[in-house]
Amino acid sequence: MVSLPKLRPIDPPSAAFLLAESKNQPMHVGGLQLYERPDGAGPDFVRELFEASTSSDEEVMPLFLKHPYRSVKTAGQLFWREDDQFDIEHHVRHNALPTPGRVRELLELCSRLHSTRLDWERPLWEAHLIEGLADGRVAMYTKIHHGLVDGISAMRLMQSTLSTDPDERNMPAPWTKRAIRSSRSKSRDDAATTDAAHTLSTLPGDALRTALGVTAEAAGMPAALVKTLSKGMRNEASTVSFHAPRTMFNRSITSARRFAAQDWPIERIRGVGKAAGVTINDVVLAMCGGAIRTYLIENDALPDAPLVAMVPVGLKAKESHLPSAEGGNAVGAVMARLGTDQADPGDRLRAVHRSMKDGKDALESLTPVQVLAMSAIGQAPAILGPALKMQGIIRSPYNLIISNVPGPRTTHYWNGAKLVGNYPLSIPINGMALNITCTSYDGNMGFGLTGCRRTVPHLQRLLTFLDDELAALEKAAGV
Amino acid sequence: MVSLPKLRPIDPPSAAFLLAESKNQPMHVGGLQLYERPDGAGPDFVRELFEASTSSDEEVMPLFLKHPYRSVKTAGQLFWREDDQFDIEHHVRHNALPTPGRVRELLELCSRLHSTRLDWERPLWEAHLIEGLADGRVAMYTKIHHGLVDGISAMRLMQSTLSTDPDERNMPAPWTKRAIRSSRSKSRDDAATTDAAHTLSTLPGDALRTALGVTAEAAGMPAALVKTLSKGMRNEASTVSFHAPRTMFNRSITSARRFAAQDWPIERIRGVGKAAGVTINDVVLAMCGGAIRTYLIENDALPDAPLVAMVPVGLKAKESHLPSAEGGNAVGAVMARLGTDQADPGDRLRAVHRSMKDGKDALESLTPVQVLAMSAIGQAPAILGPALKMQGIIRSPYNLIISNVPGPRTTHYWNGAKLVGNYPLSIPINGMALNITCTSYDGNMGFGLTGCRRTVPHLQRLLTFLDDELAALEKAAGV
Repeated sequence: MVSLPKLRPIDPPSAAFLLAESKNQPMHVGGLQLYERPDGAGPDFVRELFEASTSSDEEVMPLFLKHPYRSVKTAGQLFWREDDQFDIEHHVRHNALPTPGRVRELLELCSRLHSTRLDWERPLWEAHLIEGLADGRVAMYTKIHHGLVDGISAMRLMQSTLSTDPDERNMPAPWTKRAIRSSRSKSRDDAATTDAAHTLSTLPGDALRTALGVTAEAAGMPAALVKTLSKGMRNEASTVSFHAPRTMFNRSITSARRFAAQDWPIERIRGVGKAAGVTINDVVLAMCGGAIRTYLIENDALPDAPLVAMVPVGLKAKESHLPSAEGGNAVGAVMARLGTDQADPGDRLRAVHRSMKDGKDALESLTPVQVLAMSAIGQAPAILGPALKMQGIIRSPYNLIISNVPGPRTTHYWNGAKLVGNYPLSIPINGMALNITCTSYDGNMGFGLTGCRRTVPHLQRLLTFLDDELAALEKAAGV
Repeated sequence: MVSLPKLRPIDPPSAAFLLAESKNQPMHVGGLQLYERPDGAGPDFVRELFEASTSSDEEVMPLFLKHPYRSVKTAGQLFWREDDQFDIEHHVRHNALPTPGRVRELLELCSRLHSTRLDWERPLWEAHLIEGLADGRVAMYTKIHHGLVDGISAMRLMQSTLSTDPDERNMPAPWTKRAIRSSRSKSRDDAATTDAAHTLSTLPGDALRTALGVTAEAAGMPAALVKTLSKGMRNEASTVSFHAPRTMFNRSITSARRFAAQDWPIERIRGVGKAAGVTINDVVLAMCGGAIRTYLIENDALPDAPLVAMVPVGLKAKESHLPSAEGGNAVGAVMARLGTDQADPGDRLRAVHRSMKDGKDALESLTPVQVLAMSAIGQAPAILGPALKMQGIIRSPYNLIISNVPGPRTTHYWNGAKLVGNYPLSIPINGMALNITCTSYDGNMGFGLTGCRRTVPHLQRLLTFLDDELAALEKAAGV
């Protein structure tokens, strides 16, 4: 007798992320981590790490064993089923960069890895160990379906397996049961804040996921949410009353992706913020606004009205009146004008700051249901898109999502390898071809830009423009 | 005024291959070529080759510029459209193998490259230059949609750009217009035969494609073909009267692929054939039969009845009474019993030989329309599958396709790099999870095995079994 794998129901938001997936719109998030080799690592360091990861007896955690399943027997409904032929070598892979092994080749590889859809017949994740960087560093690209875990939780999951002790060895791979156990014991240390308030700062690992779960269950996703939202949008005083101009980013997308990433010292960003009396997040948004302005001018595609970014922000539990995991915070969204209509960097920073301040003030005046709706938009634009259209809201109220997720403040290690860079890869969707997600780590702010390769040509040029913009902001602020 | 790209209609077989594609059934063929570095090639040889290929001013041939397109304006019908944003860097890529850079790592990379679908928003092909083999050889994996070109033509297309002159330089890349021009001037040299008659031997480059085109146009693809075919199948004397047993290969497939390849000296295969009085192709089929038998025994899945392979064979034009390009040959198909029920290698070879001889005799007695139908099965099992079911023919008359396509007999070079290995990657389809395609080159017979990674586990073990089987056949034949 063969025992059949058990079927478990898929919660509505996860199912929604699964069903939103199509050939041109894969719904997975990714992460790119850069490590330095530990002292004494031989030329076969990555190969050994790979072999240890795939041949260990460690039990894989259930999250990484289940895949979506439907059949005549399930009446066409999606269920989670354990993969009874789980094949670790399908999920964990060993890659190499071609010569000359610059960051450029690394980003090109990650772009391609991020373009391919996960196979629904298998658990929805991959981890790629990458060797061949000319400077000897080692990279890990990870990929996980948004229906399994949201981007922030995925990054935390990966980070949770790291240690602050450079001498610790025999550490588990992030997909093992032991990794989860060890993460629980030290999760508090890493809940670092890089910004004072109103960011995702002190958010516990599961909060976002929970917020969305609550949203869906409480409000009957997505129709009721859209109703609330559309009310808000018709109210000119609301945070969501902006009309985003149409831009080249707000078109249909194709299946190929381009990823670019770079980091800048938080000290420089903080310096601008202090001098100008604004938050670090405001400076990050002004950098994005300035870089996008230059990019659009180069493409002869700058609209007169300023672009609007949807910026997820953390909300204190008592303000949001929301139930949340571990008594933590909930997530709201602010629509921020990016000042792309301003030629002067100082003016742009002030415009961004004003817009963020208005948005956060308005957010605090929203009802809990409105906050939930905001949260859902932030998490699920692809799902809400069609629903918005049904409500007669043809155009999205924003042009792109810019998230800023704080990461660990201190140096971390994995089996002695020092983590030196950490960049998120997000999900471009139809009508929203560019996503910017930032995360801080060990004194640096890492920017991860993910775009449709065709709709956002030469995406990597935005890195140069971000760099130019930080320098211009420093000059404008007199730093 | 922007001039819109012109739309051209897609011929019915090409459209059928496009429409047969699904998430789990990508419809592209591939090729893996191994080269030795030319004398004096530096460490950046592959990088330079890559840069020369992507930055040249050579005009790309129209075949490699068109992509399928449909919209409301085309009333949902598929058309070819020229890609007006053609981006060579999306199509030509530079890859590297991780340490230790064995053939195993190369096959693993090709397996993954062959698993991903081509993007319909772009021309349907990719070429990957691969460095990092420990022995210094360089690989090229190419991928092209079956709707654009069939597997054999694709291989010939790639081969057509090669030269027999090791000192020739400044040779065009296979996707350029110049490559096609140079191939016409020398195509006759390479139309080599490795088997006496009834193989695809003297087939000119376009014949297969033409045969299928004729099929579709003449008989109203696929319904009329199936009618003919189903008549044939109810006639016990026909070549298609076999009943293939159900095997583990004849199940639904998933999207991931595994590819394995190896070659053996034709001299050894010919030696067995001569001693046993059979053709080289018979020996190749007996090797496959023996290897599959061992594989199925290992998986506790050997059926009592022998497996049946569909084997495409060439037909002389006068025998087939068919119109064909350049007065060449047409293609038929023989259903060959693989002798998997025979424990003795000698018995198996005799069984294969008898079965092939009966099939070829029967094929010669078929009417032209029946031959056309056979040809269509060989080319389009994925298309005919559903049609067969509608005709009440639930089970396929064969378990897998084994093709043997002759290649050039002499040593060839690309810009001084000596071609030392040449292996085809084919298309597993639902109900037919394994494909074996062989091709000869410069004294060796290369076997390319392409399977669904899940349905055909540990596919690479078949290589060991093929090797064992050739030795066993030599022993049985007293070589």
